[in-house]
Amino acid sequence: MEIDKITQGVLNVIDNGTFKQEGAYNLRYNGQPLCHGDSEHIKIKSKTDKNGIDVFIDGNTKGEQVHIPVVVTASGMTDVVYNDFYIAEGAEVVIVAGCGIHNAGCDNARHDGIHSFHVGKGANVRYEEKHYGEGDGTGERILNPVTKIYMDENSVFTLDTAQIKGVDSSIRETEITMEAGAKLFVTERLMTHDKQNAVSNMEIQMNGDGSSAKIASRSVAKGQSSQTFHPKAIGNAACHAHVQCDSIIMDKAEVCSIPEINARHIDASIIHEAAIGRINNEQLIKLRTLGMTEEEAEAVIVDAFLD
Amino acid sequence: MEIDKITQGVLNVIDNGTFKQEGAYNLRYNGQPLCHGDSEHIKIKSKTDKNGIDVFIDGNTKGEQVHIPVVVTASGMTDVVYNDFYIAEGAEVVIVAGCGIHNAGCDNARHDGIHSFHVGKGANVRYEEKHYGEGDGTGERILNPVTKIYMDENSVFTLDTAQIKGVDSSIRETEITMEAGAKLFVTERLMTHDKQNAVSNMEIQMNGDGSSAKIASRSVAKGQSSQTFHPKAIGNAACHAHVQCDSIIMDKAEVCSIPEINARHIDASIIHEAAIGRINNEQLIKLRTLGMTEEEAEAVIVDAFLD
Repeated sequence: MEIDKITQGVLNVIDNGTFKQEGAYNLRYNGQPLCHGDSEHIKIKSKTDKNGIDVFIDGNTKGEQVHIPVVVTASGMTDVVYNDFYIAEGAEVVIVAGCGIHNAGCDNARHDGIHSFHVGKGANVRYEEKHYGEGDGTGERILNPVTKIYMDENSVFTLDTAQIKGVDSSIRETEITMEAGAKLFVTERLMTHDKQNAVSNMEIQMNGDGSSAKIASRSVAKGQSSQTFHPKAIGNAACHAHVQCDSIIMDKAEVCSIPEINARHIDASIIHEAAIGRINNEQLIKLRTLGMTEEEAEAVIVDAFLD
Repeated sequence: MEIDKITQGVLNVIDNGTFKQEGAYNLRYNGQPLCHGDSEHIKIKSKTDKNGIDVFIDGNTKGEQVHIPVVVTASGMTDVVYNDFYIAEGAEVVIVAGCGIHNAGCDNARHDGIHSFHVGKGANVRYEEKHYGEGDGTGERILNPVTKIYMDENSVFTLDTAQIKGVDSSIRETEITMEAGAKLFVTERLMTHDKQNAVSNMEIQMNGDGSSAKIASRSVAKGQSSQTFHPKAIGNAACHAHVQCDSIIMDKAEVCSIPEINARHIDASIIHEAAIGRINNEQLIKLRTLGMTEEEAEAVIVDAFLD
């Protein structure tokens, strides 16, 4: 199927320019499934009771990718979608999601992606999600993702989320439960500018012995934007968690970081580190001596920080 | 005035055994002022509208100590007291407070000490506060301190609090506002055991350029006790803050740490670190090879950690 230029442009940003109508994929466009494909091991079915898809990934899946991008270009639209992933024992899969809004109108455009991941024993899942907004309309671009991850024994989940730019308002809710031996890696990157507002709440319940979580959050707040982080790591068993939040503030921005660590078991070991500050002055000076303007130097540092 | 044996025993713990009826002091006993003294530079006046004292510390005070211990031995008593400190510009003073409850009865004994400190420009205050409970009664020993500190320009405040043991329930509220150049040092130490419960909320507003805060909280939770920490550092100006919370959990205890750092100014630099875990195993093994029992070794490590 032919994809229009604006949609393809958005796809190039949120899907690393790699989106193809091949293998297992599902492209959602303005609240409707536009095209989709299955593969031998991965089957995608539309839900019949509400918006969204069920994705079944069988245990023989090894290193395959599923792409499920969402594009909204209709000003005034609120698109709520429920995507559920059933990952069988032993599967190894990369899921590339992402949502881009092109809003050229004066009404708000909003997408709420509610995702659940049922991760079987020993399965290994990498989930990538990019959020992006563009368009010169005055309407807001709003993204409120909900991510629920249920990790069975010895499963591995890598959650890699990025809010690139152009998202006026975002409330992210992430809930994760972990059984014995499960390993979680979270990388969250976030950039806000102008009068944007972003909130990220995350709750990780480590219920099984030997479970471990490594959370890294990096953010840059520019303009008059504001960001609030509230990651919560709860150790109910013999487990390890390390939570790290680093933020750069610029201009008149505001960042609030409220990590919560809660140890309810003598062998729960949880560490948190957070730092908020301005851009590193020595790096700035070094780049400026190389001939860059202040703006160029800042852009290089910010890009490297969020990379 | 003669002090009875039980009261003297409690005083020895909460006042480092140094309490004397000399210089500026005020001993509060079972809800009544028992004895007090003034010095040339420090005057203590009983409030006429409610329980408590006003302490006036003049600008010529240099290195003097004020002792204001509180002892409760009456089971069933709830003692609420308001103590206000007016520290003049340039004063240098050490304030030794502390509250001990000896409860031999079956009813609860409770003390709420509500303290405010008005710290003048350039003044340097060290405030020490020890909380302690004892007595073989079944009634609870409850301490709910409220501490409000207003720091004028270039003042220095060192807040050193310790909950030693025997306190069944404690809710601590601390509020601090800081003007330009003010420097704050907080050391909080807390030990809970059995079914004790302790909550510590702290809010630091850094409003002036060049203000800085260094917060160190160390705690040990034993038995089935639970602890919750909620320190909040807010940077409204060019300021620095470093918050560190370290907790050891033992037995079936639970520790929850919810630090909040909030930067509202591009030159606000705020760092937080928190760690919760069990006692260091290598230290334990080392001490046991020196011939200590497991209990002895644990006691040495815990004492060193809280020292």
